Amino acid sequence: MNIPKCDLPRVVIIGGGFGGVALAKKLRNQEVQVVLIDRHNYHTFQPLLYQVSTGGLEPDSIAYPLRKILQDSPNNYFRLAEVLEIQADKNTIFTDIGPLDYDYLVLATGSITNFFGNTNIESNAMAMKTIPQCLNLRSLILENFEDALLTDDLNQREALMNFIIVGGGPTGVELAGALAEIKKGILPKDYPDLDTRIAQINLIQGGDRLLPTMSSQASEKAEKFLRKLGVNVYKNMRVTDYDGHLVSTNTDDTFEAETMIWAAGVQGAMIHGLNANDIVARGNRLKVDEFNRVAGFENIFAIGDIAMMQTESNPFGHPMVAQPAIQQGNSLGANFLRMLKNESLVPFEYVDKGSMATVGRNKAVVDMKSFKFQGVFAWFVWMFVHLFFLIGFRNRAIVFVNWVYNYIRFDREARLIIRPYKKNKKVN
Amino acid sequence: MNIPKCDLPRVVIIGGGFGGVALAKKLRNQEVQVVLIDRHNYHTFQPLLYQVSTGGLEPDSIAYPLRKILQDSPNNYFRLAEVLEIQADKNTIFTDIGPLDYDYLVLATGSITNFFGNTNIESNAMAMKTIPQCLNLRSLILENFEDALLTDDLNQREALMNFIIVGGGPTGVELAGALAEIKKGILPKDYPDLDTRIAQINLIQGGDRLLPTMSSQASEKAEKFLRKLGVNVYKNMRVTDYDGHLVSTNTDDTFEAETMIWAAGVQGAMIHGLNANDIVARGNRLKVDEFNRVAGFENIFAIGDIAMMQTESNPFGHPMVAQPAIQQGNSLGANFLRMLKNESLVPFEYVDKGSMATVGRNKAVVDMKSFKFQGVFAWFVWMFVHLFFLIGFRNRAIVFVNWVYNYIRFDREARLIIRPYKKNKKVN
Repeated sequence: MNIPKCDLPRVVIIGGGFGGVALAKKLRNQEVQVVLIDRHNYHTFQPLLYQVSTGGLEPDSIAYPLRKILQDSPNNYFRLAEVLEIQADKNTIFTDIGPLDYDYLVLATGSITNFFGNTNIESNAMAMKTIPQCLNLRSLILENFEDALLTDDLNQREALMNFIIVGGGPTGVELAGALAEIKKGILPKDYPDLDTRIAQINLIQGGDRLLPTMSSQASEKAEKFLRKLGVNVYKNMRVTDYDGHLVSTNTDDTFEAETMIWAAGVQGAMIHGLNANDIVARGNRLKVDEFNRVAGFENIFAIGDIAMMQTESNPFGHPMVAQPAIQQGNSLGANFLRMLKNESLVPFEYVDKGSMATVGRNKAVVDMKSFKFQGVFAWFVWMFVHLFFLIGFRNRAIVFVNWVYNYIRFDREARLIIRPYKKNKKVN
Repeated sequence: MNIPKCDLPRVVIIGGGFGGVALAKKLRNQEVQVVLIDRHNYHTFQPLLYQVSTGGLEPDSIAYPLRKILQDSPNNYFRLAEVLEIQADKNTIFTDIGPLDYDYLVLATGSITNFFGNTNIESNAMAMKTIPQCLNLRSLILENFEDALLTDDLNQREALMNFIIVGGGPTGVELAGALAEIKKGILPKDYPDLDTRIAQINLIQGGDRLLPTMSSQASEKAEKFLRKLGVNVYKNMRVTDYDGHLVSTNTDDTFEAETMIWAAGVQGAMIHGLNANDIVARGNRLKVDEFNRVAGFENIFAIGDIAMMQTESNPFGHPMVAQPAIQQGNSLGANFLRMLKNESLVPFEYVDKGSMATVGRNKAVVDMKSFKFQGVFAWFVWMFVHLFFLIGFRNRAIVFVNWVYNYIRFDREARLIIRPYKKNKKVN
């Protein structure tokens, strides 16, 4: 990997998501050598991925070059690599560009889509965890409409315009809302020669309410918003199979749909070598103590989605979203600095800053500790908070311009098929 | 293709570039049925492609949805298709989504890269005529630097950081300048652990001056600007072969380079069925009369790069750039409207609005009829003109924000490897 050896302790961080970036920033210009490894050369602002899928934002505006985050800190290194295995007894990781020794290892690998072992669904459904995946989905949605124009088979045309979104969490709700707005605002203008009323947006939720991690107020309002936008919301329904055309469920309902988006679950992005049963908790997450140290290891840490820190206030671990990752990255960074000074470590304490989801134009739901609200104001809060947490001034400016434009013009101009999906199904 | 038959004459336009779009706009809400066909669902603003290749602009900001251009004009249709053959005797085109009859056919297919029959170069060099090609180049440039970090073979490292740009027209000059600025402003910060001084930008021009279609003043100044930026400019040199590593030339010079960008020529994008020798002129362009009618046909027209209209003032046809295409699209559109009213047609007259090229920050060259200038003011004129001709308010706003940011911060934040190129060489 060509990382120079030096006298400073080497901290290897795997993953440049919210947690890894927060940690790397904390360790800038400190007495440690930091090696940040990611399979992409950019940080992805995942909360806005659904807007890339639906043509509201360009991918580049929610991505930020990881090398730029490390600039001007001479002991920081970045490597574009995929980690294949960890050999903890040798303090070494193995990657597709060679091995690397570490003094401290931090797993900030985040999460991947959980298909719960259903390989049919895995190979036929679309996932939405990375920018390439979202660009594939953007292409597929647009290609479907183009194909719908061409077929004279009404069943096939309906299937091409039938969208099944599985999972009623924030991603599913936000995607359903965005698709419903496209159906209403863009399709009739773009496809005057197609009866776009037959387009269906179906949101399927396994539990008895949407946004199950939020307040019941938020759940109810989100569902009301979605129904108002014309989304068909199915609750207490689980998708059991999908062959690329027919969606089977645990009820009598089936759907014929060319597009199914799977947002029904995530799991920790585990790396071979650390997946011994006793340290892996529910959801494929690594058990960590309150200092984010992985159970049984002195010098291996995990932060963010991949970390399962069970505390009294969070008996099932922290939610797999940005805030715990950022806070754990900061906390672990501060603890590294304490270690360097031989000070005693401070346990992590999660500050719940609330949660929110947007359904569409002027429609969002926000839960704060003592204040829950929905509607226009919630929508502005949602936008403000997302702009605030986006990394980089340029990205903020570009996203802001897009949002203002989209709001005024009821439009989404990034409806571009840059890389066809159907013709190139193997592309990642 | 599912285009409804109606009593109006059907005009089929192949290609949504500058010419096709200008023509389609002219025919909006007129007594004709218009079918616009393109293999992409967006218009590409080609003059800024080099900024996509070099991370200065996101691809989506120089692309514009073609369907949006046709909105609110009920007799206009768009089809995403590739035209395979024209059968002029049957007034029919054949595409990958089926055949279509026409009353009038307009070829606005533009141009493709001309490798002059050298298949080695074609398969090993990078082209820069489409957004996917430019994204491939963006990925490759960045991947090369990542790989340069990893190798201990100094020759290989140099080859990875050696960029050969073939062709001293505007594309080659602009790309060379942008790469030189990246070398100077971004590489040292992004790759502190790499000796980025060994990066070489080589511009190879077959003739004895750069920008041969511009004034000698512009040529000299552009070369001076490039040399100041550290670009190695070779004149009177032709690249004869490239195996992916070794660049051979017609002189004694050879170069070891992992990246060669071919901007040395374009040719008309011909379609099978119209390529009879007697109507094809130099550069694979279709001979047209002053009404843009293809020689020998009553109802087939060609505009833009694919059209060769030889006039007294332009004995070799018009330059293969945006302005003639736009003007011919407008002229042909006006003539179609005259035909509908049985008025006599007006021959095309080209208004040369001048030409320009940019080398980098504060460095551009502009030739106008009676006024030639170079430097800072030329650079501002260049930016203003490009913003003006970009289609769509949103694109203008996004490009403007990017340029202001890049100018103030000496930065280019779209240095993202969204789709790896080396791992996926087959991707288009």
